[in-house]
Amino acid sequence: MRKITFGVANSLDNRIARSDDAIDWLLFGDEAMSFMEEFWKNVDTVLMGRKTYEITSKMEAPETPNVKTYVFSRTLKKCPDDTVQLVSEDAVTFIRDLKEQDGKDICLMGGGDFARTLFEAGLVDEISVNIHPLLLGAGAPLFLDMDRQIDLELLECKTMEHDCVALTYRVKK
Amino acid sequence: MRKITFGVANSLDNRIARSDDAIDWLLFGDEAMSFMEEFWKNVDTVLMGRKTYEITSKMEAPETPNVKTYVFSRTLKKCPDDTVQLVSEDAVTFIRDLKEQDGKDICLMGGGDFARTLFEAGLVDEISVNIHPLLLGAGAPLFLDMDRQIDLELLECKTMEHDCVALTYRVKK
Repeated sequence: MRKITFGVANSLDNRIARSDDAIDWLLFGDEAMSFMEEFWKNVDTVLMGRKTYEITSKMEAPETPNVKTYVFSRTLKKCPDDTVQLVSEDAVTFIRDLKEQDGKDICLMGGGDFARTLFEAGLVDEISVNIHPLLLGAGAPLFLDMDRQIDLELLECKTMEHDCVALTYRVKK
Repeated sequence: MRKITFGVANSLDNRIARSDDAIDWLLFGDEAMSFMEEFWKNVDTVLMGRKTYEITSKMEAPETPNVKTYVFSRTLKKCPDDTVQLVSEDAVTFIRDLKEQDGKDICLMGGGDFARTLFEAGLVDEISVNIHPLLLGAGAPLFLDMDRQIDLELLECKTMEHDCVALTYRVKK
């Protein structure tokens, strides 16, 4: 079965964006880039909610021609970008089916409600956070309240340039 | 001037206690104990708010005979424990004065409102978090909203037994 990794960069106070959705505080460097390159070798599918889509679509992202992106939204009628597929049906059913299909691993981006739904449904297999050295003090939280405790196993802990710390965990089922 | 370190154990979703204040999820081991022993060698003063005091006073804590504990509260009239000193005056003024006095370093415990007040006043010099491998899913958050961004410098990153990760940061002023 394909693995779903929740991959995010966060602040030490566990925010993923400022109150105005800005992600100008994200730090990039050679180590982060090669960490990401290694990660993307095994991934061919990206999942995100509407809000994350709206934020990331404004960014200059590197080309990922072999990656299929699904945006989950009940309110969006159409994606302006025809390289992404809009999904308005039930996310849990759709993604459970996607995991059973042939393919490489799957990356869950963003946070908030959409990530919570997938965690609560037991669909997330790994978490990869890149903790940035700051307290944002306000903004969108990475993790919301959930219906239960989720236990993790630390797979990797790696310090990177700019005082970032990349932690990878396996979700215990 | 004496250094104030905010020292806490948290979950990956940045909670410091369950909704019912329980901290039964905390993991201890030899590495954590020697990390703490090293830390306490340089500390002779502990600061905490009322809520943290009420939680920790129920715990079986190791004896710390040479450590002076201050509990800050405007509502508590009296501490049942006469080894701690209750402070009802303005915390920022009191602690700013304390930092100027002779002595070893100071440990800020807990989180929430009391920690926010000290961060916003620029009184915290270091942060030491022991990230536990779980998402609690609910409970008291480590960091609340603050009036500004606070930048950090990573001083140490140490993996410990039970899949815990201890991160130490210097607060940039």
